[in-house]
Amino acid sequence: MDEKMAIQDQYPDEYANCYGCGRLNPHGLQIKSYWDGDGTVCRFTPASRFSGGFPGFLYGGMIASLLDCHGAATAAAAKARAEGRPVQRFVTASLKLDYRAKTPIDTELEIRGRAVEIKGRKVIVELTLSAAGTLCAEGSAVMVQLPEEQSWG
Amino acid sequence: MDEKMAIQDQYPDEYANCYGCGRLNPHGLQIKSYWDGDGTVCRFTPASRFSGGFPGFLYGGMIASLLDCHGAATAAAAKARAEGRPVQRFVTASLKLDYRAKTPIDTELEIRGRAVEIKGRKVIVELTLSAAGTLCAEGSAVMVQLPEEQSWG
Repeated sequence: MDEKMAIQDQYPDEYANCYGCGRLNPHGLQIKSYWDGDGTVCRFTPASRFSGGFPGFLYGGMIASLLDCHGAATAAAAKARAEGRPVQRFVTASLKLDYRAKTPIDTELEIRGRAVEIKGRKVIVELTLSAAGTLCAEGSAVMVQLPEEQSWG
Repeated sequence: MDEKMAIQDQYPDEYANCYGCGRLNPHGLQIKSYWDGDGTVCRFTPASRFSGGFPGFLYGGMIASLLDCHGAATAAAAKARAEGRPVQRFVTASLKLDYRAKTPIDTELEIRGRAVEIKGRKVIVELTLSAAGTLCAEGSAVMVQLPEEQSWG
């Protein structure tokens, strides 16, 4: 993998259509995740239409989406680094989130990930989402690598 | 509460702006949840732009969003029914999801919820998401009622 390039920009084309993170989805959020030391980071400013129930704060589903997409990227990057191979696509088997504080909208969010276990095709990641230094949400995910030789469809 | 009317259509105006389920968010998904026996149901057909990595299937963040918004509605409805009062707004404290099968896009999804515990302002809900009878995801959430007399902002 190229450790300077966004992880999502190294996904195989056939798996790069995700609304959250696919570079080939022109309608999507196109979030980008990068290595940063031993973990990964993604910075993203959600538009105001992604409001929660109360205006000015982000809706919970977007927080889940950011952790999910960044978690998949973190798993893919960790596995690629561990094996010295190109980035492969991971999908989510399970996701757990705790919402810790209201998340502001129209503000740059910092999502961080860390792979805590790599076991065969499965990678466990821990995730946080902060705004201006305040932890707003945290969680963990079990990510599974898609087979390389077989279409997901 | 009115048990025939969509639960989200009974949220107080100041909390009805959610991208996922707010009737006052013109850019949002405006999902609608209803009582159905002892539980709740929401039917929703996601547009193709909400693709996952592989075209033709839904991205994980949307699945989390649907369970989250429907879970909040389920908690609000269960509390309102238990107390014979109008619907109040709930927010998510935690959410756990297991992805069981690929979720098709451009297909009507059925999201079901059930409140399994009501304890003061906290309601625990169990959730499933199915497509054409196949279970695609399931999870649970801890939902917390917002104070009535105090703005969330």
